[in-house]
Amino acid sequence: MATATYPVETIQVPSVRTIAPVMKALVYHGPGQRAWEEKPTPRIREASDAIVRITTSTICGTDLHILKGDVPSVTDGRILGHEGIGVIEAVGSGVTSFHVGDKVLISCITSCARCDYCRKGMYSHCRNGGWILGNTIDGTQAEYVRIPHADTSLYLLPEDADEEALVMLSDILPTGFECGVLNGQVKPGDSVAIVGAGPVGLAALLTAQFYTPAEIFMIDIDDKRLQVARELGATVLINSSDGKAAERVKAMTGGAGVDVAIEAVGIPATFDICQDIVAPGGRLANVGVHGKPVELHIEKLWDRNIALTTRLVDTVTTPMLLKVVGSGKLQARRLATHRFALQDVMKAYDTFGNAAQEGALKVILKG
Amino acid sequence: MATATYPVETIQVPSVRTIAPVMKALVYHGPGQRAWEEKPTPRIREASDAIVRITTSTICGTDLHILKGDVPSVTDGRILGHEGIGVIEAVGSGVTSFHVGDKVLISCITSCARCDYCRKGMYSHCRNGGWILGNTIDGTQAEYVRIPHADTSLYLLPEDADEEALVMLSDILPTGFECGVLNGQVKPGDSVAIVGAGPVGLAALLTAQFYTPAEIFMIDIDDKRLQVARELGATVLINSSDGKAAERVKAMTGGAGVDVAIEAVGIPATFDICQDIVAPGGRLANVGVHGKPVELHIEKLWDRNIALTTRLVDTVTTPMLLKVVGSGKLQARRLATHRFALQDVMKAYDTFGNAAQEGALKVILKG
Amino acid sequence: MATATYPVETIQVPSVRTIAPVMKALVYHGPGQRAWEEKPTPRIREASDAIVRITTSTICGTDLHILKGDVPSVTDGRILGHEGIGVIEAVGSGVTSFHVGDKVLISCITSCARCDYCRKGMYSHCRNGGWILGNTIDGTQAEYVRIPHADTSLYLLPEDADEEALVMLSDILPTGFECGVLNGQVKPGDSVAIVGAGPVGLAALLTAQFYTPAEIFMIDIDDKRLQVARELGATVLINSSDGKAAERVKAMTGGAGVDVAIEAVGIPATFDICQDIVAPGGRLANVGVHGKPVELHIEKLWDRNIALTTRLVDTVTTPMLLKVVGSGKLQARRLATHRFALQDVMKAYDTFGNAAQEGALKVILKG
Amino acid sequence: MATATYPVETIQVPSVRTIAPVMKALVYHGPGQRAWEEKPTPRIREASDAIVRITTSTICGTDLHILKGDVPSVTDGRILGHEGIGVIEAVGSGVTSFHVGDKVLISCITSCARCDYCRKGMYSHCRNGGWILGNTIDGTQAEYVRIPHADTSLYLLPEDADEEALVMLSDILPTGFECGVLNGQVKPGDSVAIVGAGPVGLAALLTAQFYTPAEIFMIDIDDKRLQVARELGATVLINSSDGKAAERVKAMTGGAGVDVAIEAVGIPATFDICQDIVAPGGRLANVGVHGKPVELHIEKLWDRNIALTTRLVDTVTTPMLLKVVGSGKLQARRLATHRFALQDVMKAYDTFGNAAQEGALKVILKG
Repeated sequence: MATATYPVETIQVPSVRTIAPVMKALVYHGPGQRAWEEKPTPRIREASDAIVRITTSTICGTDLHILKGDVPSVTDGRILGHEGIGVIEAVGSGVTSFHVGDKVLISCITSCARCDYCRKGMYSHCRNGGWILGNTIDGTQAEYVRIPHADTSLYLLPEDADEEALVMLSDILPTGFECGVLNGQVKPGDSVAIVGAGPVGLAALLTAQFYTPAEIFMIDIDDKRLQVARELGATVLINSSDGKAAERVKAMTGGAGVDVAIEAVGIPATFDICQDIVAPGGRLANVGVHGKPVELHIEKLWDRNIALTTRLVDTVTTPMLLKVVGSGKLQARRLATHRFALQDVMKAYDTFGNAAQEGALKVILKG
Repeated sequence: MATATYPVETIQVPSVRTIAPVMKALVYHGPGQRAWEEKPTPRIREASDAIVRITTSTICGTDLHILKGDVPSVTDGRILGHEGIGVIEAVGSGVTSFHVGDKVLISCITSCARCDYCRKGMYSHCRNGGWILGNTIDGTQAEYVRIPHADTSLYLLPEDADEEALVMLSDILPTGFECGVLNGQVKPGDSVAIVGAGPVGLAALLTAQFYTPAEIFMIDIDDKRLQVARELGATVLINSSDGKAAERVKAMTGGAGVDVAIEAVGIPATFDICQDIVAPGGRLANVGVHGKPVELHIEKLWDRNIALTTRLVDTVTTPMLLKVVGSGKLQARRLATHRFALQDVMKAYDTFGNAAQEGALKVILKG
Repeated sequence: MATATYPVETIQVPSVRTIAPVMKALVYHGPGQRAWEEKPTPRIREASDAIVRITTSTICGTDLHILKGDVPSVTDGRILGHEGIGVIEAVGSGVTSFHVGDKVLISCITSCARCDYCRKGMYSHCRNGGWILGNTIDGTQAEYVRIPHADTSLYLLPEDADEEALVMLSDILPTGFECGVLNGQVKPGDSVAIVGAGPVGLAALLTAQFYTPAEIFMIDIDDKRLQVARELGATVLINSSDGKAAERVKAMTGGAGVDVAIEAVGIPATFDICQDIVAPGGRLANVGVHGKPVELHIEKLWDRNIALTTRLVDTVTTPMLLKVVGSGKLQARRLATHRFALQDVMKAYDTFGNAAQEGALKVILKG
Repeated sequence: MATATYPVETIQVPSVRTIAPVMKALVYHGPGQRAWEEKPTPRIREASDAIVRITTSTICGTDLHILKGDVPSVTDGRILGHEGIGVIEAVGSGVTSFHVGDKVLISCITSCARCDYCRKGMYSHCRNGGWILGNTIDGTQAEYVRIPHADTSLYLLPEDADEEALVMLSDILPTGFECGVLNGQVKPGDSVAIVGAGPVGLAALLTAQFYTPAEIFMIDIDDKRLQVARELGATVLINSSDGKAAERVKAMTGGAGVDVAIEAVGIPATFDICQDIVAPGGRLANVGVHGKPVELHIEKLWDRNIALTTRLVDTVTTPMLLKVVGSGKLQARRLATHRFALQDVMKAYDTFGNAAQEGALKVILKG
């Protein structure tokens, strides 16, 4: 009997544009060292890749941690940045949802969509992705970036998208929402306390209001940030500099504490406020990135029916957040306080690194 | 400034084996017409495809519906079958999780993993898949089958897998479980009634026991099937031939009815039993494929706090079901009552088409 | 050995005030017959009773159904009404949470708190209560009303409560919220359609916004009511008089339909719109009181992964709704369109019975 | 106009039997001090009280903690015990569900059913009850006990109830189930680790199987208890004496850890095992009563998407557990290892206090 060999599949040539072979990017060179310098322009390596020309980027608190040397997975020579919006310049042969010229939101989390974690919605732990941009592969504070698993790590935006608002959806809005609000199970009528009025805490504040809590206590040591919180919907402001934040929250809740305490800083002192104020039956949703252990007062909490959650953002809610932004019900733009040209990213870092004095929340980088 | 064009990606040649260009398959030729005949062996068409050599297949009640002409999407010349286990003979360049020689379970639902429906776990409505095997593309009652989106539509099995048991995971076990048990929200201590003791009803019976209900009423008009149900864990058997099934269930539940009523037939009479017996606060989970409307007694049900659900199986629980089978806690094998060589599939259809008289549940086809 | 007999418990004399032995009330006298007439003032009968002097009441669509003779449990001589606010005039010896002089909200559902249904939050099916006020016992369209199980069927209000707003919490707000919004599982970013812009549909509209849906389609045949819906937050208005509502909703949702369809009328035509427009994976939450069966198109819906729910309001969310009203985030007052003195309740019925022409939503009765 | 004063309610005389004025009971007299001595027989004090003659009781690990002086709310003279079965000897005028002569299960948690906590199912925090028996009021290691809020703190048993099995439903079965299994969200196919094979850990083991996990690792330092665990369904036994339990669990789960880790001891070492072995996306359900803080490794856990829960048992699942026991699917009896007459409770304490050497799990006290 005759036999046959299968022909290989038809080869799909990726769509391409002509791009300069080198570009400029913000590069990490070990603790305390960063530079705006030339790097080779990224190219398609895998069928699922896309190359995106950055039109808007921004800096994250995590980038400052990296610069302090706190994130050992980031090595010398890495382009930083995991947030951004841009235009697709090239796609690999396996990319089916996007085309050259599309405007896209870049998710800080890369998701292969196929692994066991992705299939249960835990993209943060994707076996082929997760948080890799500006970490284990080059990131978005550059003229171009390569995005693996583009079909499931990018989101189409309209041509006329408000980029300064939408770039908040790369990371901080899903982070505040998923790690703080969803994990905290905020419900209508709840009392919510958010400890930390930085960009992520404010993102939690904005998105907590999706569920109409009755009260939102905002706790920080910076009165300027607290004022922003008031404008964004906080009902009670507490400056915790005097160490009496927990005491005051309890006084204002008849001794009960709050239904939901959201930790958005990442140090023992703020974690302690949260464990002090969470009411019986309440939730303590940790959002902050912690560098050391905390003392958990389980000798007091063991019988209080609480849940304490941790989470790296999955960005599984990005499609929903885009719908809410589209409906005009989320004022993300307010989080952007400063604007720089991408080529001035070194100055932008100076400003962001001195956020308290500068009154900075998110600094926008325009490509 | 010099410019450059991106090179195309490195071409990945799919792994292949030498396969005969024609094969035998069970082909639909319009209402009432089927034949075991020669067809071209399927080939890789898309990068995400795999070709599977069938080692075990089976026939579904849906295949009988197709043969009656009830499923217009199935056209003359279609190879039937959406259940099976086999060995991978070829994979497209985009397949990363499977290799030639792997033994795999074929899901009746093809999932691209990328579309909006897949990302929320509704693979049944996958925009690039769903129920297509043996429906809009050729199926598994054949020597070979092409499986699109192989990475996310196949499941790796061990070499020595019990194929007669595991082929039940292609369709009926996830169907009974997802559409019946999960949608019915079966809980420890519940009373559950399953109307229809055919293969899918029995699959619901087996998997309902994952949640330790206190009582499972099995309702059918066939005493032989009810006896099987008893062996598989039903606590009360009701032959509904006399039209008094609902009456009896109510009598045995103090007039209250059951927490969960699972409809596993697909006709008005069995739906009516379910709406009669669902208790206040209960769930009516429809599994049956219906060909015509039913009269919903909402004038009685409007104030009873019930939920009625419908679902095409998503097979989102297949990884979990594989774990439970692996732990020895699901006796899937008992559903197989008859065995045929694949080449005798015409006879197998005769037996399965006459299931009541033959005492047939699932007929196994050995490739 | 000596023995002893227990003394009986110390008798607690209920707190009382001096009250006239007769009062005026709106009494049902069979289909089409109602009168404002003298009735004996109610007295404490059980230890758990309270007597409430009505300060605000209102009329429900259900009261009109009763007057048509559609509710056979209501018999000649019954005082109607199941909504109201008042002041406690007397409490039985077993009442511990309320005292004479307290201002209270009366729940339309009486809950004993002890039975199996109450313990799982299904107060609607309380074995010792449920919907009994103005149904099987005398109701709130009267100068005084006896409330059984007062501790768990009344809610304390502040002295200066906005009674016209809060009386909406007796029935329509929890009804729209629990039966429509909660059962419909409205989520941020969802598309929601509400069929019926009467008081309950508008209550669903107001409370759906607790969850920040992206779009709310309001469907009715009355343009005036649709205008109110717009003011209360509907994003799309559809007059369904031409029978094309479903068609239009599908056109506006790219053919997909809506995530949540809320039926707030109770007739086959409006139910049909809902079953036509519910998207795959969506929820159809029935709120309307139906007098006859509907044809359920399960031949289309069986594979669409939908959930259809029914519910008599449990008022289990009343404490939460009070918190949200207290926080200023629910504008319940807007539902009150007309005001009458309680003694003019006969005229109020005329107005409410002619709601379309009168532009009436809820008519307030001031005691 | 004439006025009238309400008559008081008809006085309901509580049903009584003739009971001796004194009884024997196990009384706490400060750290290390207990005695079996005469005490006045309890009497009805509130309308909602019942007096129960104890037919079966048992001793809890918590009673040993009390005797060490670790529970300051327990004062000199208190009768200990919060578990038991008995026969009702008297009921107050407000008790409607029980009658003299009824056999009843006593819940360790007293629930008023009316307060905000009770209404949301958190009976553990009942504002008028909670854990009070053998704590702030006299308990069940006595011939008679007074049960406040009897209607909602007792459960009717059949005359011929298996008391040795059912007394496990007073505390340890709901504790293992609610705090461990429900809070741990055990699901079919899950891997579960239970740290601590004492009575409560074994109760978690028994009830975890309601949900058909694929694997249950049981971890303890006592091989005898581990053997019992094997008989009761554990699939892997780990003696943690060598400090390598976490290491081994990780090795046996491919480095991933378990879906659910249940802490059933209450010391830092066992808590540490749990936080070491919980997989990304997993749950750590604390059941143990802790006397001091633990170090939470949030610097490792912050990005692992875990939930850590605490809970004092609510006994909200007691009706369900009774149904499951009734269906023969829960072998509670196996937890009883020793039997004593109630009057030998002093010896029973000696045995239970020396549980490891005696091979004791629960010691039954027969009244």
